[in-house]
Amino acid sequence: MSFAVGIDLGGTNTKLAVVDRAYRILTHRSVPTQPETGPRAVIAALTQVAEALVQQANLAHGDVVGVGFATPGPLDLGAGRITKAANLPGWHHVPVRDLLRERIGLPVTLENDGNAAAFGEYIAGAGVGCEHLVVLTLGTGVGAGVIVDGAVLHGHFDNAGELGHMIVVVDGLPCPCGQRGCLERYASADAIVRRVEANAETPKRRNTETCRPEPTAYSLQSTAEKPRTASDIARAATNGDAVCAKVWDEACKYLAVACVNIQHAFNPQRILLGGGMSLAGDLLLAPVREHVRSQAWSLHADLPEITLAKLGPDAGVIGAAALAFDAFGSS
Amino acid sequence: MSFAVGIDLGGTNTKLAVVDRAYRILTHRSVPTQPETGPRAVIAALTQVAEALVQQANLAHGDVVGVGFATPGPLDLGAGRITKAANLPGWHHVPVRDLLRERIGLPVTLENDGNAAAFGEYIAGAGVGCEHLVVLTLGTGVGAGVIVDGAVLHGHFDNAGELGHMIVVVDGLPCPCGQRGCLERYASADAIVRRVEANAETPKRRNTETCRPEPTAYSLQSTAEKPRTASDIARAATNGDAVCAKVWDEACKYLAVACVNIQHAFNPQRILLGGGMSLAGDLLLAPVREHVRSQAWSLHADLPEITLAKLGPDAGVIGAAALAFDAFGSS
Repeated sequence: MSFAVGIDLGGTNTKLAVVDRAYRILTHRSVPTQPETGPRAVIAALTQVAEALVQQANLAHGDVVGVGFATPGPLDLGAGRITKAANLPGWHHVPVRDLLRERIGLPVTLENDGNAAAFGEYIAGAGVGCEHLVVLTLGTGVGAGVIVDGAVLHGHFDNAGELGHMIVVVDGLPCPCGQRGCLERYASADAIVRRVEANAETPKRRNTETCRPEPTAYSLQSTAEKPRTASDIARAATNGDAVCAKVWDEACKYLAVACVNIQHAFNPQRILLGGGMSLAGDLLLAPVREHVRSQAWSLHADLPEITLAKLGPDAGVIGAAALAFDAFGSS
Repeated sequence: MSFAVGIDLGGTNTKLAVVDRAYRILTHRSVPTQPETGPRAVIAALTQVAEALVQQANLAHGDVVGVGFATPGPLDLGAGRITKAANLPGWHHVPVRDLLRERIGLPVTLENDGNAAAFGEYIAGAGVGCEHLVVLTLGTGVGAGVIVDGAVLHGHFDNAGELGHMIVVVDGLPCPCGQRGCLERYASADAIVRRVEANAETPKRRNTETCRPEPTAYSLQSTAEKPRTASDIARAATNGDAVCAKVWDEACKYLAVACVNIQHAFNPQRILLGGGMSLAGDLLLAPVREHVRSQAWSLHADLPEITLAKLGPDAGVIGAAALAFDAFGSS
């Protein structure tokens, strides 16, 4: 029996796990990343935690075939580098793969975090058996990964599957990436909370002077009890909060547009929705599926099944470990 | 030396060619398809032409390794069937691969026409050396094909790369496919001609009674000399025709949105533009590239090169023949 370590580096927290060949987590921990301490310090700290987790699982260093290292992108996979990551300020062109390998003394494979999560769902989650799979992780942003013929799609520049930055609204809301109208401006957990707050603070009126008042347009709830999470907003929407309903439905509609475009681009068997927004469960699935049905073509029955991801926040570490098995585990 | 036959079945005309291992066309012909005569009659007629082309190339039946058959989709590749094609009325679930194989007495491989054209450009055109490539054929509709790691991407339902039906305008113009706002409603050669004609016939005015006249908004040219082709419209646009300029620029802008979304989905090295609209050359490339530059993210330099396809209307037959070599040419 052999084992792998999966590390899922985030801007705030980093998850680490020791995983067996059946993709079960033996030991795991989440620690603050503290990216401001710099790549070397972060990697030294993560190495310490990883070694402790291996010990805690009653394993020796030699039982571990390697480390899968999932990090925010964009990446240069050939060089093993993080090119530039929005939530790792100052980490430019950092050779994280080699830094970790030298420190931990094990082979390391680097992967984009969205891709690692998608591979995790493919190998051990809601995408098992789907050789063509797309996973959208609706959290702070929209992470994504694409599985083609059972492997992660990288493309020529290593950044395939950055589906959170597909433009769904031409000339739409500005995104820190430099574009306008990106999917993640409308349909990430954070975007929804932000949009509800913005709408609640400054409700729009048509030509204030001439219009009749609209007493029911914005319920008290949206200003009185500020919803804190995407799921809260989904619930408030079903309970009649007009602002929440508008923002949530718009998010579901643009997600559906993305799903239709994914259908035509990759023609996957399944599209999985994960991340904070997916905690709303059926309150997310039902309207997204309905919008897809009304927007997708009627030419041919090639609509992917749209359903929830299964591994939750563990998808990244499990996927990363699975990629280490693929790369280094000659069984 | 061995040879292959490429057939590119269209709603109006079908192209056939005998192709050698260097992907050179030895003999070729274009014939009316006459789909209304039914699949068997069409395939019998095409077989006759193919056999004549083999003879004309001074080849024997045994010199031909097989036939690559490119047809409009959607297809069921496993069963070798055209599921339903908008421009082949009445051809539903037709097992064209087996019909042709039985008639012509050679192995036949079936492929979507957009995919075959993309493979042609990859193997012998403007995409040589690009293992990750996307080709958009801007003609009657928008045909497309995606090359991933040097092979045609099919996806789970065999219809990957139907990029002409990516939604670029939510709730936009209706498309015969059943969707609204498909790329091909804005950026195909036919769509452009149609939109210019529609605009020229019924120029929009703001609240006619109160607005001042807009003498320069629509030049005489657009009503007097109706542009007939997409290239004519591109030229009229540069010559100051306001309707043509508006329609052409909008087409280029939506094409650029599609290119940005293709960048994030597939991250290809190159995107090729072919078909009738691409005959406009730099009048197409320059504004598309400019719109891409202004719309794409600034996070990372992974912008694919956007350039013109090279094989013109031969891309389909060359690609189809090349796929026959891949499938049946053992050497």
